[in-house]
Amino acid sequence: MKSVLILNGPNLNMLGTRQPEIYGSTTMEDIHAACAAKAKALNIALAFEQSNHEGRMIDLLHAARTEHHGVILNAGAYTHTSIALHDAIIAMERPCIELHLSNVHAREEFRHRSMIAPVVVGVIAGFGANGYQLALDAISPLL
Amino acid sequence: MKSVLILNGPNLNMLGTRQPEIYGSTTMEDIHAACAAKAKALNIALAFEQSNHEGRMIDLLHAARTEHHGVILNAGAYTHTSIALHDAIIAMERPCIELHLSNVHAREEFRHRSMIAPVVVGVIAGFGANGYQLALDAISPLL
Amino acid sequence: MKSVLILNGPNLNMLGTRQPEIYGSTTMEDIHAACAAKAKALNIALAFEQSNHEGRMIDLLHAARTEHHGVILNAGAYTHTSIALHDAIIAMERPCIELHLSNVHAREEFRHRSMIAPVVVGVIAGFGANGYQLALDAISPLL
Amino acid sequence: MKSVLILNGPNLNMLGTRQPEIYGSTTMEDIHAACAAKAKALNIALAFEQSNHEGRMIDLLHAARTEHHGVILNAGAYTHTSIALHDAIIAMERPCIELHLSNVHAREEFRHRSMIAPVVVGVIAGFGANGYQLALDAISPLL
Amino acid sequence: MKSVLILNGPNLNMLGTRQPEIYGSTTMEDIHAACAAKAKALNIALAFEQSNHEGRMIDLLHAARTEHHGVILNAGAYTHTSIALHDAIIAMERPCIELHLSNVHAREEFRHRSMIAPVVVGVIAGFGANGYQLALDAISPLL
Amino acid sequence: MKSVLILNGPNLNMLGTRQPEIYGSTTMEDIHAACAAKAKALNIALAFEQSNHEGRMIDLLHAARTEHHGVILNAGAYTHTSIALHDAIIAMERPCIELHLSNVHAREEFRHRSMIAPVVVGVIAGFGANGYQLALDAISPLL
Amino acid sequence: MKSVLILNGPNLNMLGTRQPEIYGSTTMEDIHAACAAKAKALNIALAFEQSNHEGRMIDLLHAARTEHHGVILNAGAYTHTSIALHDAIIAMERPCIELHLSNVHAREEFRHRSMIAPVVVGVIAGFGANGYQLALDAISPLL
Amino acid sequence: MKSVLILNGPNLNMLGTRQPEIYGSTTMEDIHAACAAKAKALNIALAFEQSNHEGRMIDLLHAARTEHHGVILNAGAYTHTSIALHDAIIAMERPCIELHLSNVHAREEFRHRSMIAPVVVGVIAGFGANGYQLALDAISPLL
Amino acid sequence: MKSVLILNGPNLNMLGTRQPEIYGSTTMEDIHAACAAKAKALNIALAFEQSNHEGRMIDLLHAARTEHHGVILNAGAYTHTSIALHDAIIAMERPCIELHLSNVHAREEFRHRSMIAPVVVGVIAGFGANGYQLALDAISPLL
Amino acid sequence: MKSVLILNGPNLNMLGTRQPEIYGSTTMEDIHAACAAKAKALNIALAFEQSNHEGRMIDLLHAARTEHHGVILNAGAYTHTSIALHDAIIAMERPCIELHLSNVHAREEFRHRSMIAPVVVGVIAGFGANGYQLALDAISPLL
Amino acid sequence: MKSVLILNGPNLNMLGTRQPEIYGSTTMEDIHAACAAKAKALNIALAFEQSNHEGRMIDLLHAARTEHHGVILNAGAYTHTSIALHDAIIAMERPCIELHLSNVHAREEFRHRSMIAPVVVGVIAGFGANGYQLALDAISPLL
Amino acid sequence: MKSVLILNGPNLNMLGTRQPEIYGSTTMEDIHAACAAKAKALNIALAFEQSNHEGRMIDLLHAARTEHHGVILNAGAYTHTSIALHDAIIAMERPCIELHLSNVHAREEFRHRSMIAPVVVGVIAGFGANGYQLALDAISPLL
Repeated sequence: MKSVLILNGPNLNMLGTRQPEIYGSTTMEDIHAACAAKAKALNIALAFEQSNHEGRMIDLLHAARTEHHGVILNAGAYTHTSIALHDAIIAMERPCIELHLSNVHAREEFRHRSMIAPVVVGVIAGFGANGYQLALDAISPLL
Repeated sequence: MKSVLILNGPNLNMLGTRQPEIYGSTTMEDIHAACAAKAKALNIALAFEQSNHEGRMIDLLHAARTEHHGVILNAGAYTHTSIALHDAIIAMERPCIELHLSNVHAREEFRHRSMIAPVVVGVIAGFGANGYQLALDAISPLL
Repeated sequence: MKSVLILNGPNLNMLGTRQPEIYGSTTMEDIHAACAAKAKALNIALAFEQSNHEGRMIDLLHAARTEHHGVILNAGAYTHTSIALHDAIIAMERPCIELHLSNVHAREEFRHRSMIAPVVVGVIAGFGANGYQLALDAISPLL
Repeated sequence: MKSVLILNGPNLNMLGTRQPEIYGSTTMEDIHAACAAKAKALNIALAFEQSNHEGRMIDLLHAARTEHHGVILNAGAYTHTSIALHDAIIAMERPCIELHLSNVHAREEFRHRSMIAPVVVGVIAGFGANGYQLALDAISPLL
Repeated sequence: MKSVLILNGPNLNMLGTRQPEIYGSTTMEDIHAACAAKAKALNIALAFEQSNHEGRMIDLLHAARTEHHGVILNAGAYTHTSIALHDAIIAMERPCIELHLSNVHAREEFRHRSMIAPVVVGVIAGFGANGYQLALDAISPLL
Repeated sequence: MKSVLILNGPNLNMLGTRQPEIYGSTTMEDIHAACAAKAKALNIALAFEQSNHEGRMIDLLHAARTEHHGVILNAGAYTHTSIALHDAIIAMERPCIELHLSNVHAREEFRHRSMIAPVVVGVIAGFGANGYQLALDAISPLL
Repeated sequence: MKSVLILNGPNLNMLGTRQPEIYGSTTMEDIHAACAAKAKALNIALAFEQSNHEGRMIDLLHAARTEHHGVILNAGAYTHTSIALHDAIIAMERPCIELHLSNVHAREEFRHRSMIAPVVVGVIAGFGANGYQLALDAISPLL
Repeated sequence: MKSVLILNGPNLNMLGTRQPEIYGSTTMEDIHAACAAKAKALNIALAFEQSNHEGRMIDLLHAARTEHHGVILNAGAYTHTSIALHDAIIAMERPCIELHLSNVHAREEFRHRSMIAPVVVGVIAGFGANGYQLALDAISPLL
Repeated sequence: MKSVLILNGPNLNMLGTRQPEIYGSTTMEDIHAACAAKAKALNIALAFEQSNHEGRMIDLLHAARTEHHGVILNAGAYTHTSIALHDAIIAMERPCIELHLSNVHAREEFRHRSMIAPVVVGVIAGFGANGYQLALDAISPLL
Repeated sequence: MKSVLILNGPNLNMLGTRQPEIYGSTTMEDIHAACAAKAKALNIALAFEQSNHEGRMIDLLHAARTEHHGVILNAGAYTHTSIALHDAIIAMERPCIELHLSNVHAREEFRHRSMIAPVVVGVIAGFGANGYQLALDAISPLL
Repeated sequence: MKSVLILNGPNLNMLGTRQPEIYGSTTMEDIHAACAAKAKALNIALAFEQSNHEGRMIDLLHAARTEHHGVILNAGAYTHTSIALHDAIIAMERPCIELHLSNVHAREEFRHRSMIAPVVVGVIAGFGANGYQLALDAISPLL
Repeated sequence: MKSVLILNGPNLNMLGTRQPEIYGSTTMEDIHAACAAKAKALNIALAFEQSNHEGRMIDLLHAARTEHHGVILNAGAYTHTSIALHDAIIAMERPCIELHLSNVHAREEFRHRSMIAPVVVGVIAGFGANGYQLALDAISPLL
């Protein structure tokens, strides 16, 4: 059985609480539950993490090298600034998918650059919570 | 029954013929067939087009306004240069997904900018032919 | 009797249909009719064309060299990217006016640069359908 | 009866005197006279001012808020550098047209940027003295 | 008794009149009155000026060298373009505070650069009319 | 009774110890004490934190959403690089003031850009330890 | 016997007609004739095409993959903007020479960048009609 | 007898008063006197002006067209920002020398660009008050 | 006896494990051992730390102010983005050497800029594990 | 009989010796011999020089003014940096062809800019040693 | 008696020969003679050198440290590219004047930047051969 | 026995003479002597050269291909501008170390870019004369 880590970065813990009139009442926990169901259907073991700490995210990616077969990474704002995550993904040597809830390319200029895109397999952005389901479908044949 | 247009831009007709040692022997026709099967499973009517002509692509997007409920657009190289396609997507007033076979963000600098990303729902890039399947899954709930 | 070509570029065929709450119900046909009336009053023969194809627009500009005495060009999105239209205007050797329905300078950064402005007589932008009337008045003494 | 202010900026007082072999012998006074005739035909009250002082131009735009229904502004070189004029136009809350005698987009790079274009209705450039007539026609339906 | 000049730049005379639904009905006169009261409480003599003329502002800063012990400068739009004010502040040799009603860093890109910030003691921006009170508190220990 | 969090970022714990001939002997503790006195006078409950960890600062801002009515944020060097803090401030949905001891705009080019300024109420910079007093005065009417 | 396609892009059909005092009376037909003679001498089969349509040029390059052994490409203005031609040349998998009548590097800044240069064998520019002869000589040993 | 205008721009009136430990005690009056003597020796009539107002400087340059045979212009900080002065120098149609007391090229980046240099005969910078003597020597043969 | 801290940043813990065919089987532990031997020979007390957390690295640099006489800093990817480390090095007031295993200047553009280089004594890059030996030799006379 | 100088710049003396598995065993001497034969066939007198010294190259270009009727210049790396060679070519007043062995436009960014291209007749790049033959053919009708 | 070196850089040896209809028939020898006369009148010993070799110019500046009291440097095209000359001027520790025959600021963009201006006393540009006379006058009081 | 060339570039001959209060009295000769001693200890034959001529430096690097096993290159100011040295190092095919006396990354912006760094093994900068000792230690295992 293959294992996948879904790693969420800064501010994603606020989902559902923050601006519910915009983002709706879907929380990280809801997404976790939906991913667990999907993973089960795909026969994938799932780990689901969130951290606001860049260093913690790097630690988790390093651990994923031996503990998981692939990673779905929603690095949040660190996507646009972190060369350290870029290097951690290379060091991990596991297929990695870059995921964003929103269409980052349609937002501020500083969200158009991704420091991690050059070292991931592919990018999925703009489909909200459904993006996690798509990412699991996308990573499944890559494990 | 909802209808989706999959519109492929310049050079995508060469798929399968071009550098098979790299891209494999999957052709546009193979992708068309796989998409047709997937669309059937999703109960979606499918139109599948390819053109090397920017003007023709604009014509097709305009027609999609009344003929389809959503568009999956692999605009190829025009992604990075065409403001006209940007405007055509707005004029179409239908949900549109930007699709790329390769991870464009990991390639040359001039492929990092997308002129159409600001007006699409979301972006899927880097998953090869499988990206078309993911895009159909992604657009289904948006129709 | 002098002859003028009014040449409209990509997406302008969608006028009136697209976002009527914003752009109103004035269509390209309405503008054509109003221009025909104005041209008659100015004793000018009028040709009125629209194309979404950059190549077709170049062909029409080349033909205008022998068929018309001046051109009013609303090149739409190609305004900002087409060096080929820039060169076609030079090759045409006829006075040419750059026209825009909207005030392009008040919109996105990528609409601020005009590749054709350096080779036209002048620019009229921001006056909606009335801009066509102003352009006919402007070109009349230049024929 | 509606009232329009035509406000001319730096160096425009030199028209007719300066390089007559290039600009012809048309002076600001000639343009004033032609505008007065045109305004009369359009049943518009006309004020016509020129100043080389940015501060004076701001003062006049502020006064126009209560004294005029619209402004035609040939801001000359201040067009390209003055954020203060940009703000004054907003504060004025009257329709404003940006006017240039020459086709500024065909000249030096530093004349391609307009600081006031984002806050005017539209732009007319390149038609020499005739531009004033076109601007009066353009502003008439906006008063 | 120490003396402070509060110098306001272009368009600030329009406060209260302009877009009252946004800026409220507080006028420059209201601010002057509130500052006078605050200055009295701080035992500071107050001069309060406004000008739309860059040259006049320079003249006033020069005069402040001998007439005042400190300056609170809301240079408005000239903040972003005027090297001459930068030099005048140096020549004045008095502590100077840069003040803005709005949070200029949250507005257009061209308002992010301040030509005078390198030669002032500090910056206060975004607190509306209350910013003048804060600035008086801030300059008091510097006189 | 309203509550305010004063959150200090990287290296601010070194205040007083570091280069005392320049920064004086005022320590973070001294500033804390002065702020506590000021807050008491303003009838505000005060929390005072410092961390060198970006992730910890994000955690604290998230907590402030329910624990405080406003935040004074001296984000130190993270001001210029952290999109994650930018997003955390939005998620917090509490008025936030950006504070700097030094006049960052008068220092190195890389300190001129603030990633958080677009989402704060206002900015106070350059007044040393006194800036904390000014910030408390500034935030008081916003709670 | 080897076959070469000479493909000419936008506005090159105007040669000889356009500004004859500058470009002389040499037409595309003249160049075609001279190339035919040269090709015969080199024992090369020659195809000679011109189009103002980017899409048509892509179609022709695709066809060249099986119909020709090499291509001489004067892409005109599309040289500087077309990533689609860049990709078409790669897909063609035939040696390609970039040709220009004029010395593009001595003209406007926007003609200094070539989007196709990275994927061609070499570049010949500035020798007028004679450049076609040189290009045939250059491609001959590469077939 | 030929006539020369020496026109000094913003902040130059502060010479001698401002930072005497750096700039010395030489005042504008001293420079005026030294220039008067030098002009007499060169048999040149001299006018000597200073203004902090850009508009006033433009007015004086316009007047110089008929009143003087040449101009020595120390435009101070306006050198780096004023397109209006650039245009006024062209309109004046008299030889003009750009003069600076300090070596502006050795100072801040924003003093390296001169908006007026493209329309003056030559530039003298960095020689302090002596620069005025050199400029009179330089302009003498150009009158 | 002098004491030196060798501080390693993000991803350096993966050395030896990661891509051994490229980086060899030398681990951080091996480097630690070699440094310990070298330090002993130089009569220097050695502390050897690694962290993926920027905040932890700042804490350690602060502590080094009182605990060590010099620091060898391989800040990894944070080298290129961290202004906070820049400030921490200044606050530390101890000689600091910037060290890189690889020749960062020969790699991606984003690794060419060092935010810490302006505040270190010197830089050693490109010599692999041997760089640590060189850095100890380099820091020895600076303690 | 016409005379042509072929002038080769820095590092070209290493041809054949350097990386023979890539560049082959063709040396500068081989190219010289082939050029001599070609020149003889074209009835052109040939001078063939190589220098690693920019100053020496300038000297040779100056001498070419009176000693030769045209120059073929492979300026090597100086192509991209030398304004002095640019000026020397103008001063020479002889037709000059810019030649490169490799397709410089397909290499590093810093090889895309040519300082000499604006003052040469044309450019030939990417054809290896054969480029010298093409250049002799190209210059022959220009002598 | 003080000694001055006038050092002329690349291409200045061609003066008088090159484009005499533009530059006139004044040669370097003529300028040398005029300078010799002027130097004699100023009681200055004069050395006059020209070289097309950057290295030779550096050698001469080094020698000037002990052999001369000041240098007038017309570095020609090296002005805009040579950091080595910048460093040589600092090492020389003698007052140095930057001189140009033409008004470099009115020419191509790449002539606007001077690498040596930050380390010279002042700049004289645009006065042709007369500039040498002015430079001798300028350097005289600095020796 | 292995042989190493230490090659010093422009202005390094002035060491010890120039600004002794800053650089100390260590001369190139002193450094040569210390390097000779170190080389002897390492059993390396040493050649030590200095030149202000870029061309001479290229010649020496070419010669090093057959005469030496490695090169330590302090290219001085040419480091930042010379593509020719970049190419010469490649052509040399010997390990090369880039050396700087000062920490160039802490100095002017134009010293931050190294044209040779991409083709050297590693970089040592900022350790003064001691850097030569470190470089000999660094190159020893690479010979």
